[in-house]
Amino acid sequence: MQAEADDAHLREHCLASKAVFEGNFLKVHRDQVRLPDGGVASREYIRHPGAVMIVPILDDGRLLLERQFRYPMGKVMLEFPAGKLDAGEAPLLCAQRELLEETGYSASHWAHAGVLHNAIAYSDEGIEIFFARGLTAGQQSLDAGEFLELVTHDTAELDALAASGAMTDAKTLIGLLWLTRWQRGEWALAWLPA
Amino acid sequence: MQAEADDAHLREHCLASKAVFEGNFLKVHRDQVRLPDGGVASREYIRHPGAVMIVPILDDGRLLLERQFRYPMGKVMLEFPAGKLDAGEAPLLCAQRELLEETGYSASHWAHAGVLHNAIAYSDEGIEIFFARGLTAGQQSLDAGEFLELVTHDTAELDALAASGAMTDAKTLIGLLWLTRWQRGEWALAWLPA
Repeated sequence: MQAEADDAHLREHCLASKAVFEGNFLKVHRDQVRLPDGGVASREYIRHPGAVMIVPILDDGRLLLERQFRYPMGKVMLEFPAGKLDAGEAPLLCAQRELLEETGYSASHWAHAGVLHNAIAYSDEGIEIFFARGLTAGQQSLDAGEFLELVTHDTAELDALAASGAMTDAKTLIGLLWLTRWQRGEWALAWLPA
Repeated sequence: MQAEADDAHLREHCLASKAVFEGNFLKVHRDQVRLPDGGVASREYIRHPGAVMIVPILDDGRLLLERQFRYPMGKVMLEFPAGKLDAGEAPLLCAQRELLEETGYSASHWAHAGVLHNAIAYSDEGIEIFFARGLTAGQQSLDAGEFLELVTHDTAELDALAASGAMTDAKTLIGLLWLTRWQRGEWALAWLPA
């Protein structure tokens, strides 16, 4: 990696920040920024609380996923379970809560793989990536207005869905990246008991 | 993949749609929707023109990337070249234009790998994934207010940056997924002359 010590030739500095839209879900800010060449520009972006994704591995090696209608896409999407952080919530606790609420499963062992930033041009969202295994089925408790279907796939099936373009959700593709690298012994996961 | 023929138990239907925020860059809609159980809910989301990403492979096998300050993240991010579609612009032409503008390179051969959807909970953005090879250096022509630095990495370096958490941009991680699968002969790319 080239040197990062001095990024002054790239860095933008906040001059003023304003909340320009406060929706029920989306919060948009518009900041005036000083550019590296001294010019001024405007940057609009969403402030997001952050999120988690869980790659849940069943005892037979199959993966647990969700089929959920995503309104902005106008269709049902295949995804690993995920959800937004509550205020002040630790990511691992959020992952355990979301897995339980959305799928009914709890896990005996967890690993934190990393983080992904999914819309860096216009959102500060980060999605923390967790793996879960030692899964035990229980009772789903979906939020009001939340409808989803649980499905399972093995790694080869997921891989084929990604290659064919049938699975296009970014976080889930990155879950597949981590999964296959870990299965091949190329990337490491540090597992801890729940 | 489980049957998708009838997703009525998951599907939401638009009752009314309204533009609730029109920024310089971000456009937010809020729709009233009919839920699968007959209830009503509100969905807020960004309408995005769509985008492209290019994985540019230099003749020596190294990859061409950009280091760019991403204001919502507050730091410089390592990314494959990317950009938004102009109104009515074909994705391949956008990819050729963005590669030339941002890096100065043109390519003799192009391949379309697929599409990724990066924020399905709150944006309709899709990023079309292209590969480019047979690269020839030329003159960058950055937009006003656009500052970026070109860097090159080989696949092993990119892989290590992803595994260590130093490279977290979702589209770039998915570019790496496609790149490594293609290099191993697992996923196919259909190359066409420019």
